[in-house]
Amino acid sequence: MTTQQLHEQILQKKSFLCVGLDPDLTKIPPHLLETEDPIFEFNKAIIDATHDLAVGYKPNTAFFEAYGLKGWMSLQKTIEYINDNFPEIFTIADAKRGDIGNTSSMYAKAFFEDLNFDSVTVAPYMGKDSVEPFLAFENKHTIMLALTSNEGAFDFQTLNANGKELYKQVLETSITWKNSHNLMYVVGATKAEYFAEIRKIVPDSFLLVPGIGAQGGSLSEVCKYGMNDKVGLLVNSARAIIYASKGTDFAEKAREEALKVQQEMQDILGL
Amino acid sequence: MTTQQLHEQILQKKSFLCVGLDPDLTKIPPHLLETEDPIFEFNKAIIDATHDLAVGYKPNTAFFEAYGLKGWMSLQKTIEYINDNFPEIFTIADAKRGDIGNTSSMYAKAFFEDLNFDSVTVAPYMGKDSVEPFLAFENKHTIMLALTSNEGAFDFQTLNANGKELYKQVLETSITWKNSHNLMYVVGATKAEYFAEIRKIVPDSFLLVPGIGAQGGSLSEVCKYGMNDKVGLLVNSARAIIYASKGTDFAEKAREEALKVQQEMQDILGL
Repeated sequence: MTTQQLHEQILQKKSFLCVGLDPDLTKIPPHLLETEDPIFEFNKAIIDATHDLAVGYKPNTAFFEAYGLKGWMSLQKTIEYINDNFPEIFTIADAKRGDIGNTSSMYAKAFFEDLNFDSVTVAPYMGKDSVEPFLAFENKHTIMLALTSNEGAFDFQTLNANGKELYKQVLETSITWKNSHNLMYVVGATKAEYFAEIRKIVPDSFLLVPGIGAQGGSLSEVCKYGMNDKVGLLVNSARAIIYASKGTDFAEKAREEALKVQQEMQDILGL
Repeated sequence: MTTQQLHEQILQKKSFLCVGLDPDLTKIPPHLLETEDPIFEFNKAIIDATHDLAVGYKPNTAFFEAYGLKGWMSLQKTIEYINDNFPEIFTIADAKRGDIGNTSSMYAKAFFEDLNFDSVTVAPYMGKDSVEPFLAFENKHTIMLALTSNEGAFDFQTLNANGKELYKQVLETSITWKNSHNLMYVVGATKAEYFAEIRKIVPDSFLLVPGIGAQGGSLSEVCKYGMNDKVGLLVNSARAIIYASKGTDFAEKAREEALKVQQEMQDILGL
């Protein structure tokens, strides 16, 4: 998928919502546990109930790997279900990978080719040759951690590195890499005031924004500082939507929560 | 496994060699491709041929994930084979994971509980709450990236952050975290002169050292600056050992290469 197609989808759906799929067997509705593949059934119901309100889905690979082979199978079924039924959807493997070059190539193959995701999240610590193998895939997107939404973001990301915060250095360096037009960035919503600075460095890039909802970030604040003329934001919400109810009405309740966010987004977009 | 048990194994085998399992279908001996699970058969043959010369095996998860469900199954069979047959071996899931707290907990569950690895590699960029969930597992070990062996290590890891190189800041901060006694660190062999500085910050920790062999690092230099009174080093070699031959004699040739490294280690240990 191109960023142009993503932008068109945003205008069409009047939404830049991404739904995080973090399926936890201890949190999903108990009646699903009787099915053969509870994780997939849960994801499928959430997707069916929200796909016209969301432009992206972001399965978090940890929540699949924790269930071993069965979990990996659920991940595969989930991405296939999205690609087969809702090809307009932008898919994100939230995997936060990153390794030396030949290893990163294998991760890129895993997520872009084998599973056919549109994008994957990566960590920047190992530098250029750990990220460039992902960037080599045309019309696939590499979403690099810049400033995350957790408390530990302040341990290293905001350190003063050569005269500027590390996350700014990461952004500035990354735009010099080969095929950097395939980069997007993770920027946490809990730090809305940072978006203005970030937009000076990467004015045109899409930013994937976690931290709205359960983690306390404000949508309007993020949009005020982070939106660009192509919208340029994908705002993720996971727990607040997917765990809105533990009953048999969970998909319906998830839709209600997604609709609230979509309508707030529609207002902001002025569409 | 405790670090005491690891140290005892090192003394017994007169080796601190860790063999990296990076199984690539384009590189393994062609005759194995006719078997039902070429990746597992390759790993099993390498393990059978080298387990008395190595104290650890380090499957690199990317090389399994790239083959999807089948690859994950090969990973599971590989770790089970080691645990069932060679319980003294220290196992490392080279996964370089790291995410917000509840997600890192799921990764820890995946590698420490579901797959039953002794250790897993993690990335530090997201800070304290992304690593502490791994550290909560007693007698499991979290091997954090400090200074890696690739060229991109110099992009961010050696930046001057608050007056010292970022990797030093990462080391210093990490030792303040809860259960930091369960930490080990990745330090690349290609930067032997850095080991002296690193030992000032983490004198007692085990260091996992990639970059010997194919990546050009020197074993004697690493030991000169990095060894402590409990050895404190696990030196990884992957390609130079596992791809020593593409013929039916690949396991035999792998053993020859592993033996060379083990004997160099025995000399250095003075045993």
